Amino acid sequence: MSNIIPEKYLDLFGKPAFGFLATLMPDGAPQVTPVWCDREGEDVLVNSAKGRRKDLNMRRDPRVAITIVDPVNPYRYVEIRGPVVEITERNADAHIDRLTKKYLNLDSYPHRRPDEVRVVYRIRPEHVAGMG
Amino acid sequence: MSNIIPEKYLDLFGKPAFGFLATLMPDGAPQVTPVWCDREGEDVLVNSAKGRRKDLNMRRDPRVAITIVDPVNPYRYVEIRGPVVEITERNADAHIDRLTKKYLNLDSYPHRRPDEVRVVYRIRPEHVAGMG
Repeated sequence: MSNIIPEKYLDLFGKPAFGFLATLMPDGAPQVTPVWCDREGEDVLVNSAKGRRKDLNMRRDPRVAITIVDPVNPYRYVEIRGPVVEITERNADAHIDRLTKKYLNLDSYPHRRPDEVRVVYRIRPEHVAGMG
Repeated sequence: MSNIIPEKYLDLFGKPAFGFLATLMPDGAPQVTPVWCDREGEDVLVNSAKGRRKDLNMRRDPRVAITIVDPVNPYRYVEIRGPVVEITERNADAHIDRLTKKYLNLDSYPHRRPDEVRVVYRIRPEHVAGMG
């Protein structure tokens, strides 16, 4: 267990590798959804929209876990646990476009809705373990 | 939201589709790991070994979530939340061998350790949502 992502797993952030993000429901039960993700400094960034269940969950309780899986080898992954240390709308539209480039190879996010407010969540790794 | 897995996602259980299982740590924070899974009746079965972190977590707090992803289309998945309603060592060795057949196309689990006690966890879906 480490609080930084080992060098040998950093390649995952250069690939369209999905993260499986666990958040906590109001009663404390877990919830998991696939997310796009990338990295800034030592932190992991994910993007969602205001009012979605995972948005509400992370605003209520910042404790999350994310497991990021190599798209060509599901037995290779990195498990990260830690708090969401920042929730911001700043640059969130540019961020979803960058993720769209990585995951879909398109220049602009194709699923944008007119009324949707994009949000970036910054996850600070506290416990990190890799496999494979 | 439903408490049964919609017919259109049942094919996932016939494929080597990974589940991403979230359990709760002693302090209530979430943890996520990839798991093999299958289905019995309306329940989802996963297999682990006694003493592992997710084993300890599920024995302490039975609330889990599992998201099962189509191996050929990561944008198609089913999200399940509910409690672990049974934890048993009965038939757990035969169960891991059946999962090994599905996921690795081998007849017997190749990673077995002499001192390891396999365990089956039965998850009862309470909230189910599909995507894609």
